[in-house]
Amino acid sequence: MTNPLDVVAIGNALVDVLAHSDDDFLAGCGIEKGTMALINAEQAEELYAQMGPGVECSGGSAANTVAGIASLGGKAGFIGKVAGDQLGKIFKHDITALGVEFTSEPTHDTNPTGRCLVFVTPDAQRTMQTFLGSAGEVGPDDVDAELIQRAQVTYFEGYLWDAPPAKQAYVKAAEIAHEAGKKTSLTLSDKFCVDRHRADFLELVHGHIDILFANEMEICALYEVATFDEAVEAIRGNCDVAVLTRSEKGAVIVTPDDTISVEAHPVEKVEDTTGAGDLFAAGFLYGYTHGKTLAEAGKIASICAAEIISHVGARPEVNLAELVAKSL
Amino acid sequence: MTNPLDVVAIGNALVDVLAHSDDDFLAGCGIEKGTMALINAEQAEELYAQMGPGVECSGGSAANTVAGIASLGGKAGFIGKVAGDQLGKIFKHDITALGVEFTSEPTHDTNPTGRCLVFVTPDAQRTMQTFLGSAGEVGPDDVDAELIQRAQVTYFEGYLWDAPPAKQAYVKAAEIAHEAGKKTSLTLSDKFCVDRHRADFLELVHGHIDILFANEMEICALYEVATFDEAVEAIRGNCDVAVLTRSEKGAVIVTPDDTISVEAHPVEKVEDTTGAGDLFAAGFLYGYTHGKTLAEAGKIASICAAEIISHVGARPEVNLAELVAKSL
Repeated sequence: MTNPLDVVAIGNALVDVLAHSDDDFLAGCGIEKGTMALINAEQAEELYAQMGPGVECSGGSAANTVAGIASLGGKAGFIGKVAGDQLGKIFKHDITALGVEFTSEPTHDTNPTGRCLVFVTPDAQRTMQTFLGSAGEVGPDDVDAELIQRAQVTYFEGYLWDAPPAKQAYVKAAEIAHEAGKKTSLTLSDKFCVDRHRADFLELVHGHIDILFANEMEICALYEVATFDEAVEAIRGNCDVAVLTRSEKGAVIVTPDDTISVEAHPVEKVEDTTGAGDLFAAGFLYGYTHGKTLAEAGKIASICAAEIISHVGARPEVNLAELVAKSL
Repeated sequence: MTNPLDVVAIGNALVDVLAHSDDDFLAGCGIEKGTMALINAEQAEELYAQMGPGVECSGGSAANTVAGIASLGGKAGFIGKVAGDQLGKIFKHDITALGVEFTSEPTHDTNPTGRCLVFVTPDAQRTMQTFLGSAGEVGPDDVDAELIQRAQVTYFEGYLWDAPPAKQAYVKAAEIAHEAGKKTSLTLSDKFCVDRHRADFLELVHGHIDILFANEMEICALYEVATFDEAVEAIRGNCDVAVLTRSEKGAVIVTPDDTISVEAHPVEKVEDTTGAGDLFAAGFLYGYTHGKTLAEAGKIASICAAEIISHVGARPEVNLAELVAKSL
């Protein structure tokens, strides 16, 4: 196939609005810290009015991941929906400026480009309130079969399950990928997202997904177990590779017959954990699609995650290929 | 007067689009590093297409200054023009979230909110290409006399001289301020801006402006002299207070019969100098309007400038009042 791609992702095309906040503010708004919740246009307007001054930065979980893969020198594509407004132009500019193929047409209705209000607390945790906007309109018609067939891995964010047409887009894309003999990969995204879609996710993980990404809370939520060790044994053998991240404790890569520990890469000061999981997935998938061992892919992943948490925002501020070359 | 203000500013309401870049890119585009140039909508579109992935953040020189004053706990107002689009809403949100009074009505024509494309080079210098958009439409009708009369200082950015109606807004506001027995203040903004408007600026500085802000290049350009020392003697006695900044060499405050040196506040790593002058002015004007000596005001100014250059973007990332209390 001409023009092969390493990874193509389907996800929510969002612009992040990041602001510093504190625990009292979140409690006052009834928002649970560290999670992602969906809000409607009106709620987004109200919450934004109460939010401190912000910084805008392209986001979206899977979009952050392909941005990271491109910054690592990989070839990536993205499928997602923006509107024809200023935020949509910003999203499209930022992802294509990195060399990611992004050909999804903008929507033409009045639904604006989606945004994620991100509250960064003094402990560097991020709490997200997402107004999906046009992002929620991605559907099976947007799945570009040729793009999927060109990619070694098709990657999905669990957040897609929050919008029924997006879930149909997943089903179509996964079929195309598997028919072409390619791999599929999923991130569980968020523990509440897992709670909302547990049955679907269990079915997927136990048969349709080759590479799974989840953090400790998410994998424990999936199997409704109390400890990480129980979750590791529950997932083992159910998919080829499960990449389980544990913040400062690093990550564990679980295969049917192996368990590989990955140390967290040191960070001088953690500023904002937004995008940590997305960039871990970026580094891992880059390594995976470039002939690295799982341990090596994990090491690249932890370097990428360390970069993203050292500053505000979920897109890399440096060239990740150069950073990895220096840090390995 | 009820509801007194410390400072009201008239300036360009802009959203900054910041991206990392290098010297070769700037040279290839024929852009002179470290300066600000005006571009039209079409040029902005073309340049943005070539620009790397960006971060959006409210900006505008004088707007950054009042944002800084508000973050210091001061009372500030802003007069400037945004459009009724997403970037305009972001600008308005960010400045009002800090407590700045911003009552200027958005424009209703098709001219979008202005933006400044900021290229941050590895030496942390910033080079700006500004599409004024609706910002250039601020005019005398936008000057809220009551707001000006309430403020101890009315502050103008030199960039206003690039748009004739904005210059008329200045004339009107300065008259109102002086009639009310208040002070006026100007920043020269940029050496090319000085070159474009030297005669106007000389007339202003020599008779109509009480507090002048300029960096070394700008004040040398104003008097067309080669050395900083010559510029200091040229400005002395022409305005009450001239605050002349010199990057890592600190600043010099020149009055008719005194010269006060201000040391630069130490910075661990200079990330991006965007907004350094704006925040220096913020700190100085806050001190000036709060009964501090000129030396004390200069010290507060250098702390604020140090904060802004330690991260990407021209709006403070921390509460400046707390930072100054800790650092003094």
